[in-house]
Amino acid sequence: MYIPAIRRTLLLAATACSALLAACGSADGLRVKEVGSYHVGGRAVTLSGLPEKEIVYSPGSPPVKLNPNGDFAVEQMYARYTRLADPRGKVPLLLWHGGGLAGMTFETKPDGGPGWEMFFLRQGWDVYVSDAVERGRASWARYPEIFKGEPVFRTGKEAWELFRFGKTYDTDPAKRVALEGTQFPVASFAQFTKQSIPRWASNDAATQAAYDAYVNQACPCVIVVHSQGGNFAFNSALKYPDKVKALVAVETSGSPDPATADFARLKNVPMLWVWGDYLDQYPFWQAIFKRQEAFRQGIVNAGGRGDVIVLPQRGIHGNSHMMMMDRNSDQVAALIQQWLADRGLVK
Amino acid sequence: MYIPAIRRTLLLAATACSALLAACGSADGLRVKEVGSYHVGGRAVTLSGLPEKEIVYSPGSPPVKLNPNGDFAVEQMYARYTRLADPRGKVPLLLWHGGGLAGMTFETKPDGGPGWEMFFLRQGWDVYVSDAVERGRASWARYPEIFKGEPVFRTGKEAWELFRFGKTYDTDPAKRVALEGTQFPVASFAQFTKQSIPRWASNDAATQAAYDAYVNQACPCVIVVHSQGGNFAFNSALKYPDKVKALVAVETSGSPDPATADFARLKNVPMLWVWGDYLDQYPFWQAIFKRQEAFRQGIVNAGGRGDVIVLPQRGIHGNSHMMMMDRNSDQVAALIQQWLADRGLVK
Repeated sequence: MYIPAIRRTLLLAATACSALLAACGSADGLRVKEVGSYHVGGRAVTLSGLPEKEIVYSPGSPPVKLNPNGDFAVEQMYARYTRLADPRGKVPLLLWHGGGLAGMTFETKPDGGPGWEMFFLRQGWDVYVSDAVERGRASWARYPEIFKGEPVFRTGKEAWELFRFGKTYDTDPAKRVALEGTQFPVASFAQFTKQSIPRWASNDAATQAAYDAYVNQACPCVIVVHSQGGNFAFNSALKYPDKVKALVAVETSGSPDPATADFARLKNVPMLWVWGDYLDQYPFWQAIFKRQEAFRQGIVNAGGRGDVIVLPQRGIHGNSHMMMMDRNSDQVAALIQQWLADRGLVK
Repeated sequence: MYIPAIRRTLLLAATACSALLAACGSADGLRVKEVGSYHVGGRAVTLSGLPEKEIVYSPGSPPVKLNPNGDFAVEQMYARYTRLADPRGKVPLLLWHGGGLAGMTFETKPDGGPGWEMFFLRQGWDVYVSDAVERGRASWARYPEIFKGEPVFRTGKEAWELFRFGKTYDTDPAKRVALEGTQFPVASFAQFTKQSIPRWASNDAATQAAYDAYVNQACPCVIVVHSQGGNFAFNSALKYPDKVKALVAVETSGSPDPATADFARLKNVPMLWVWGDYLDQYPFWQAIFKRQEAFRQGIVNAGGRGDVIVLPQRGIHGNSHMMMMDRNSDQVAALIQQWLADRGLVK
């Protein structure tokens, strides 16, 4: 009679303990080992022979002479990481942004909801979010002395149209027309445009060098890359195929030439392309899709894995180019998570 | 005889359970509720009438005409937060950077050690790290059309000398002479200079407006502010004295005019100044120290709390202007933590 009583009491105690432990690692929270960041890549430059400049530091105060010559660190990139105490992802997951943007692409969404960084942390990955050369915390360098050419600033109209939010842009939000059925939270468009970061058209080689150094430092890893970042990720994978355990290409806009790429090197780098909705309404995106498909086919032909998800073909409609900010961003991320799990990359 | 056996077994079970729970919130890890970020403040600008520009997107390709006119989001700032599941700080702790730098000031140190962000997270604070207007992920705007004047780029020599790492700078690291006994990891100086971000001399009003909007959104809070950030923090505290529960001024370089500031408004905002070593060797820093002391005295005279720690007077030697990156950064942070606890801001 006493033995069952002990058993029952112990069972209750064990159940209470389990419930407490479950709360400790629950969906409400993450067990984080460390947050941190670093700069990687880049080079030292010394400028000399430039004339002094006059700078007015406070309105009304006399100009101060400034000597612009000296030593500068340039062309590095920035990465911020959140490492879990007990990750389920077998390698870190790196999120690479697209053109005219930086890492916050993947952080909290313009509508205030959690973005893909938080989604993949909750799935148990160590997550890295980077800023490419010239963007955000990577910093930028004097031009034309170091960066060649001038910075390009994206207008609201270009963002609205290029990212497939709508076809009729107006400065007055009330007069904008969004694509029918769009998942993008158009009421948060103004918040989204605050993420725009000037870009240069002339920094591809430096950006590639920094990404290569980043892969060399942060990987083995999974890379989830968006838009303009695609070309850099494919090139880094060609350089370090053993370090890239999978590559997810989210509406990537560029790639090495599919006619000459050395696809044999990518045979063991499984790849997945993800495409949103409305592509058929945009010749610009159709052309990009076609070239990306040629690149994907090259991998398949070489005996590698090149999968593709076109969301509307899966019954998921209304996704823009910025699908990580769309209302159903978690639904899209869940497809990526499943594909990564199917590749054996999740414990 | 059975009853004590049950008691003993339960005690063992409870002890095991406690040990597991302690590990769950241990020094090795953080229980994090959410990581995220947002942009706050800023305004919409429409540019018109500017001529088209020719941009070369890839070396050798024909130039493309670019119309620079349109709508832009400008003068917002960026904040990234890590919110704990069970914070011990009664309000969030905000880390504000100084001039020519951005939020990574407080992240991982140039020598790879954990910075103040991680220190205060481990102490149980929700920690926010921001980038001011024009810096990092806050982005920057076209000049001279929107930002007035030109960006200023800090040289290695200026950083070396101004931040009190050493007095003899040379492009060749082997020829640099560091201050005797410095706590700054001079072997990591090149890594530190990668954090430099161009600044403007003409954006103070916009930066103040964004910081005010940030305080309005993120506070009640504690603000720990460094160098150039000081003037913005003091002004935000004057505007929202009920929202700033404490202000820690780490070698702040500016303030409202001590002769005319409305100190009565700051009576309930406890403040602490923290100063490093070698000030007496630098007339530039002596002048700043003197003015900050006048501001602090104004608060004390008005019946408020204005404390000051000069580290060498506490027997802590060798700290640079970048004391959050110095080898003994945790030792300095622990003094701040104790002062905040003494103000009743820690549960």
